[in-house]
Amino acid sequence: MAGATTIVQLRVSDVRFPTSLEQHGSDAMHTEPDYSVAYVVIETDGGHEGYGLTFTLGKGTEVVVCAVEALSAFVVGRTLQEIVGDFRAFYRLLTSDGQMRWIGPEKGVIQLATAAVLNAVWDLWARVEGKEPRKLVSCIDFRYITDALTEEEALGGCFSSHEEMLRDGYPAYTTSCAWIGYSDQQLKELCTKALSHDWTRFKVKVGADLQDDVRRCRLVRQMIGPDNTLMIDANQRWDVQEAITWVSHLAEFKPLWIEEPTSPDDILGHAVISKALAPLGIGVATGEQCHNRVMFKQLLQASALQFVQIDSCRLGSVNENLAVILMACKFHVPVCPHAGGVGLCELVRHLILFDYISVSASLQNRMCEYVDHLHEHFKSPVVIRNACYVPPKDPGYSTEMREESVRRYQYPQGEVWQTLQATRGHRT
Amino acid sequence: MAGATTIVQLRVSDVRFPTSLEQHGSDAMHTEPDYSVAYVVIETDGGHEGYGLTFTLGKGTEVVVCAVEALSAFVVGRTLQEIVGDFRAFYRLLTSDGQMRWIGPEKGVIQLATAAVLNAVWDLWARVEGKEPRKLVSCIDFRYITDALTEEEALGGCFSSHEEMLRDGYPAYTTSCAWIGYSDQQLKELCTKALSHDWTRFKVKVGADLQDDVRRCRLVRQMIGPDNTLMIDANQRWDVQEAITWVSHLAEFKPLWIEEPTSPDDILGHAVISKALAPLGIGVATGEQCHNRVMFKQLLQASALQFVQIDSCRLGSVNENLAVILMACKFHVPVCPHAGGVGLCELVRHLILFDYISVSASLQNRMCEYVDHLHEHFKSPVVIRNACYVPPKDPGYSTEMREESVRRYQYPQGEVWQTLQATRGHRT
Repeated sequence: MAGATTIVQLRVSDVRFPTSLEQHGSDAMHTEPDYSVAYVVIETDGGHEGYGLTFTLGKGTEVVVCAVEALSAFVVGRTLQEIVGDFRAFYRLLTSDGQMRWIGPEKGVIQLATAAVLNAVWDLWARVEGKEPRKLVSCIDFRYITDALTEEEALGGCFSSHEEMLRDGYPAYTTSCAWIGYSDQQLKELCTKALSHDWTRFKVKVGADLQDDVRRCRLVRQMIGPDNTLMIDANQRWDVQEAITWVSHLAEFKPLWIEEPTSPDDILGHAVISKALAPLGIGVATGEQCHNRVMFKQLLQASALQFVQIDSCRLGSVNENLAVILMACKFHVPVCPHAGGVGLCELVRHLILFDYISVSASLQNRMCEYVDHLHEHFKSPVVIRNACYVPPKDPGYSTEMREESVRRYQYPQGEVWQTLQATRGHRT
Repeated sequence: MAGATTIVQLRVSDVRFPTSLEQHGSDAMHTEPDYSVAYVVIETDGGHEGYGLTFTLGKGTEVVVCAVEALSAFVVGRTLQEIVGDFRAFYRLLTSDGQMRWIGPEKGVIQLATAAVLNAVWDLWARVEGKEPRKLVSCIDFRYITDALTEEEALGGCFSSHEEMLRDGYPAYTTSCAWIGYSDQQLKELCTKALSHDWTRFKVKVGADLQDDVRRCRLVRQMIGPDNTLMIDANQRWDVQEAITWVSHLAEFKPLWIEEPTSPDDILGHAVISKALAPLGIGVATGEQCHNRVMFKQLLQASALQFVQIDSCRLGSVNENLAVILMACKFHVPVCPHAGGVGLCELVRHLILFDYISVSASLQNRMCEYVDHLHEHFKSPVVIRNACYVPPKDPGYSTEMREESVRRYQYPQGEVWQTLQATRGHRT
């Protein structure tokens, strides 16, 4: 990159989409989400910009915005070269400040804010460089995971290459057909439509009511036939034994995995569930609310999951996702990222291509989540072809939103929210 | 309680004490803490008030304040009777809101805010009732822990009674002698003074530099003699193998426990460390940054700790602390609470007395942390007699601060901070 590039400003916005009006995104624990982001723009003295975000569900976004503002002091005034020159140290500066780490550490609001800020830095870096950044392993903070993966192993171990796959795209599955708030009629129509667009992998939300789940899973299995893939997702609804009993009742529909059967913090619980469901041929998937590399390390060490669901906005940006992708490779567990929400599909396609091209070199048991919503708000929206993610071509991390979207959906002052409040059609 | 009591207002303040000026509270990971609180006052229509707080280290307190404001909508307008009439449901309302839980769940900023708000509710309840509240088990949310402890076990299992101990107080240990930023001379003087006040249990901060640690531990062991108790505390400084090696070098000083050897999230890591150090007679203690009952459950299930360090302000108030105290009893692991900070000693003495009187009925291997700072800012400050906590007598949860303290130390507008900024003697 040409000369030093000082970051002179960081702006953050609370942007919310009123998705709860139509039950998009509804599941057993999050019944009325308004898909939202804390949206970050960093600006350099040379006029470059980097865009970052983290995904939220509406209320509470303002708390993440407040945390981003608290972190901005670490970013503004620093050069991009300083940051990426020792990205591991910068990562630790953000996550391990002697005063701020108390309100985490590396979890919840402060980690979401870290992700939003660092996603903007990665985007800026890739734009300024005009290409994929190198020296990736040096961006990883190995603190607390050296008992599972050392830097030497990360450098020497799993890497391989397989560039030709870029032509065909990365296989995806759809979650758009069977949100828990959808009627059976909607579900049928959406499955029919998805099948006509070559989708072969379908996820169904479960966990609120067993008889409902039996009926909905039977319906979807009938719609998609015996050869297509079905996954189920309980969004943390159950206790450990309850999960085992409930999922056993759904085994006849041959789900590939049960996702988030219980608390995202319960590593040992996931291990018990994995062991109990293995004879039924059902794996355990989790990770969208797994808050850092230390938790993923243990899930892998305890054989507590069979599918690793990284999240581009909950873990500490690319840096921490790299650590998890490399650990998953070492433990021979496939990475099947969480996506959907706002922008998660846009971001995660970069990570999954990295996993394929530079780490795992395999598609076995691998696929990336896809949800067909809100892509129109991004400047480089995701492209799906034959139910596969098409690799992005624009420079950057695909994090930039359309200015008009940010303005109209800003909470609470944007015109969309002003109108909703005026008509009282939506809680605020 | 007489008639319904509606909560009509919730106020929250960012109150910070510039403790970093004198290195009070310094450790291997938090080298310059400004001990702080997010301080909550709830007010009823009948003129009753309840006080709550959560402890922080300075920067980031404003993020917790923002989260408290986000939670206030659940509290204001509700009657105390509604809340405590089904406290378990109210707890879940706060911790599992369909939109807000995404930024936790039950961890980090949002759990700290939950603690501050619910601490105020417990204080209000105890003041209005004029006595210790009953029906405690019905306040616990057993979600995600029924595989370790059921409600029936909690009701029927460990309870016993032993009221006469109230006369002698609850044994304490001191952390005030050996913060990591103190000189050897300070350390000697403080040990001498503490010994003259009947202290027999001493904690030393370690983890920054091994040779320093050897020298400081030797010094303290010489000062206190072979029969008094020494504990060491690394505040999460090490990776797993590093912890084992480092602590082995300090074994000659016979520490009772090593506290927070690694990431607070690393259950399996703590189990490995526990197993490796057991032959040296050194236990593992952790919990002050253990964010919820699900994590404590696993630490107990994995035999990953020998001392349970609950925290009155990190877990979800009394409700979640009760769950952990009951689980610890079932697993036969002693509870030795974290205290110090701002107000933690004031609050935790209630919890530890509950543990002794109603759950464990034992003092074996049990003691409560004590730090000799900032008590003067509380209306019912902690009282220590013969190195023991004297049971509190005032109604409430001892959470009320002196109005003048709140006003003077409010950040950034209080006069203490205005003066510090004017003299540039302190970063802000």
